Amino acid sequence: MPREFVIKVPASSANIGPGFDVLGIGLNLYLEISVNIDPALAETSKQDPTNCILSYEGEGADEVPLNSEHNLITRTALYVLRCNGVRVFPEGTQVHVNNPIPLGRGLGSSGAAVVAGVMLGDKIGGFGFSKQRMLDYCLMIERHPDNITAAMMGGFVGSYLRELSALETERKEIPLSEVLPEPAGGVDTGLVPPEPPVDIGRHIKYDWCKDIHCIAIIPNFEVSTAESRGVLPSAFTAKDMIFNLQRLAVLTTALTRSPPDPELIYAAMQDKVHQPYRKTLIPGLPEILASVTPQTHKGLLGICLSGAGPTILALATENFDAIASEIIKRFAKENVTCQWKLLDPAYEGAIVTEK
Amino acid sequence: MPREFVIKVPASSANIGPGFDVLGIGLNLYLEISVNIDPALAETSKQDPTNCILSYEGEGADEVPLNSEHNLITRTALYVLRCNGVRVFPEGTQVHVNNPIPLGRGLGSSGAAVVAGVMLGDKIGGFGFSKQRMLDYCLMIERHPDNITAAMMGGFVGSYLRELSALETERKEIPLSEVLPEPAGGVDTGLVPPEPPVDIGRHIKYDWCKDIHCIAIIPNFEVSTAESRGVLPSAFTAKDMIFNLQRLAVLTTALTRSPPDPELIYAAMQDKVHQPYRKTLIPGLPEILASVTPQTHKGLLGICLSGAGPTILALATENFDAIASEIIKRFAKENVTCQWKLLDPAYEGAIVTEK
Repeated sequence: MPREFVIKVPASSANIGPGFDVLGIGLNLYLEISVNIDPALAETSKQDPTNCILSYEGEGADEVPLNSEHNLITRTALYVLRCNGVRVFPEGTQVHVNNPIPLGRGLGSSGAAVVAGVMLGDKIGGFGFSKQRMLDYCLMIERHPDNITAAMMGGFVGSYLRELSALETERKEIPLSEVLPEPAGGVDTGLVPPEPPVDIGRHIKYDWCKDIHCIAIIPNFEVSTAESRGVLPSAFTAKDMIFNLQRLAVLTTALTRSPPDPELIYAAMQDKVHQPYRKTLIPGLPEILASVTPQTHKGLLGICLSGAGPTILALATENFDAIASEIIKRFAKENVTCQWKLLDPAYEGAIVTEK
Repeated sequence: MPREFVIKVPASSANIGPGFDVLGIGLNLYLEISVNIDPALAETSKQDPTNCILSYEGEGADEVPLNSEHNLITRTALYVLRCNGVRVFPEGTQVHVNNPIPLGRGLGSSGAAVVAGVMLGDKIGGFGFSKQRMLDYCLMIERHPDNITAAMMGGFVGSYLRELSALETERKEIPLSEVLPEPAGGVDTGLVPPEPPVDIGRHIKYDWCKDIHCIAIIPNFEVSTAESRGVLPSAFTAKDMIFNLQRLAVLTTALTRSPPDPELIYAAMQDKVHQPYRKTLIPGLPEILASVTPQTHKGLLGICLSGAGPTILALATENFDAIASEIIKRFAKENVTCQWKLLDPAYEGAIVTEK
């Protein structure tokens, strides 16, 4: 019997203001995976090493690999399957990806791919994992909880990584290095990897004042997460750390209160631990972050880098067009063109729908 | 006409878990100042350089100075009065202090004294300042917002210091150095100091799940704030900083949810930026913090140093006696005796009542 289902996973914005590696917002721009398992396609699917016919449209269509052992979504699904004793997709598996999330811009495209991959593996294998358990699998692939948690759980979330015991840490390395062939080459040992530790990450979902909308101004160039992490120092002064701790403590609750207080939120969205270091990667960043304020633009609540950038996230209650235009104008002075989107939190997070 | 009023200011616990220099809880243990302004006492009051007859009972009675220019409460009141053109207390001012807050134990005794002093100055001068404005005066005396904000505003609060402009920073130094004679000697120049900058600190008051109660275990020795700050490093690794940011983001909201989640809160109350460094000042601290967990003691939610210590704060929903006993037993092994109190948030903060 053919079987069809669709997985939808939201884009996300992480590192909100002072919440470096902590805060994320799932956004209503969805990576969509349409899956069709049809025995009639069995012969065709054998052209792929794991029986998966992959097609792709949207952002990244000209660069994303369609081999199921290389593609991040199917590769992640295979990891979940192999941890649970299943080596390949069922014969006749067809996966179509429709991705509207720009790659490498700080909107959580890879986080969404990992979440989609884990849900795909869970669904194909019929394991029935909870979202909390699926987060563990995600965090085996990408050990930064902010985008992952926002994409899986949706809404505005804060998360932490539990400190793993020595036993758990030892287990963490096995699956990625031994079980799946690396895209750059690697050996499928045929081993069944142990399951991931339980509750690697914990999170809390905050309320969100629904008057607040999210403006994403997306420059037309990429910043890789690795490059963006490379410019950060390994140590921070007590003063800068306390600056962020104080603002983070206020921000998470300030964004739940109605009506939102622009002065409180604007100041609470300031950051000293990652944005100042990223100005070398994003032309004009300090001036852009300073160019719109609640004084110059009524309705603005706060402004920050989305993830590692280059996307700028502005939170506002009105005047979206003028706020976006001002930021686009500033980028234009640096010879950078942009697109922009008005988004809202994706309150439900990732969802699977049977067809 | 004689005039009588009472000022009540709560004790407070600051640095809650990961919230170093950020989080505070006002506690229902009140510093109480009874004020009587009676022209019939004018002659007696002239024995004091600023017309204030000061008496004191309770914690610190044998060490707190009763000269109004040296005592922290009246000295702070004089600062507020002088900033606003009033040099001394009205003739016949009688101030009786009743203080149940142990000194130097991390329960905000000096923060309460500063808040009481500012409210006393405001009330004597008839200035009618808002609490937000009075916070500015407090922060001119003590530039750490956590205890001060909790004592003034009450409840569970998070606060940040605004970054002051150069002009504002310049003004900050004037009052303390020039206007009030230092207890260690100094010159009353007779100048009227400028008023403090506006909104030095901003804060947010969180909700609080009323099932959660506060156990304060108070060892019988003092730790000075200066000494306790002296052991802290001036720089922190990215890893330790992110550890605290992640937990802080979860904790403030976790304590508002009903029923409280012990596992989530316990982990979110862990800290890497001040407690580990303070073990040299507080015998057995790491073992004490590790000795009670939600697994060993049902009802326990979290445990941390209160302020700079040595008081231990445990949050719990039940089993208060057993939790306190376990911690007191651990301190006893280090030859430290303790008292303990079961407290609740002082939701209203500081209050003035006319008699």
